[in-house]
Amino acid sequence: MSRPLRIEPLTAEGFAPFGEVIETAGRDWYPINNGSTRRYHALARVATGPADGAAIISIFRARRLDYPLTIAMLERHPHGSQAFVPLRGEPFLVVVAPPTTEPDARAIRVFRADGQQGINYHAGVWHHPVLALRDEDEFLIVDRAGSLPNCDEFFFAAQECPILAL
Amino acid sequence: MSRPLRIEPLTAEGFAPFGEVIETAGRDWYPINNGSTRRYHALARVATGPADGAAIISIFRARRLDYPLTIAMLERHPHGSQAFVPLRGEPFLVVVAPPTTEPDARAIRVFRADGQQGINYHAGVWHHPVLALRDEDEFLIVDRAGSLPNCDEFFFAAQECPILAL
Repeated sequence: MSRPLRIEPLTAEGFAPFGEVIETAGRDWYPINNGSTRRYHALARVATGPADGAAIISIFRARRLDYPLTIAMLERHPHGSQAFVPLRGEPFLVVVAPPTTEPDARAIRVFRADGQQGINYHAGVWHHPVLALRDEDEFLIVDRAGSLPNCDEFFFAAQECPILAL
Repeated sequence: MSRPLRIEPLTAEGFAPFGEVIETAGRDWYPINNGSTRRYHALARVATGPADGAAIISIFRARRLDYPLTIAMLERHPHGSQAFVPLRGEPFLVVVAPPTTEPDARAIRVFRADGQQGINYHAGVWHHPVLALRDEDEFLIVDRAGSLPNCDEFFFAAQECPILAL
């Protein structure tokens, strides 16, 4: 196939089938701390699934991959959500496919987060590993720790792999 | 009392009685994503306590308070941890007291996070509401949602309130 992918701006509505957008722009808030702070409450909910699942906070430091990029695989976390929030204000790309049993390469969508936006993948949503657009970019990660295996990888047949160009 | 408070640099060791420091400097990591990403794993663990507690992700937008600041009150979240991670790379202050039944004004400590450091208060640790050092600063918050009341406030007698000067 090798079809080119179209990059869409990241919006809460567009991303809703895959998860939540963590941002303040256009969102409701309420005052706390005697009015000195706006709370943009519960922009995302952390799913930690069954058994001994618990939420943990990590940092990913990522280098930029080379483009055009062949999307050869996707991964998913069946038992927990996974949030990525940029810590350096830098845009990044989000490649997702719906949470079907196997990912459908034809259903892949690509969003560009503007640097003030994070995302939270719902459990089971197929996604590409982090796609920083500059080297040494950093992201805060909120995901699941626990004893159950929680990362599936799927590799597409070569002729199915879409191409991501900037 | 009105004693002045000493501001300490934030370190994992110094902050250990109160919670975790979320940072990469000097921390272990392991490679993921074919070596393109460093994972600084589980820098903090999210506690969500009993009943229907669940972790949520919010953003706080805070204005700078006026200094010298009288520390007139502290709050605590008895059933959950609460993480603050700066999204604009700006330093902020962290005022804490140990998780005794009532906070001891004489036991208050103040740490300065350098802008590349977040913190995660352990459940029950007394702390001051967010102390941004510039207006319109933003923090990612990971804390607990649930039906149990989860915020206690304690107001010090006027003569006990310490003073925080920059």
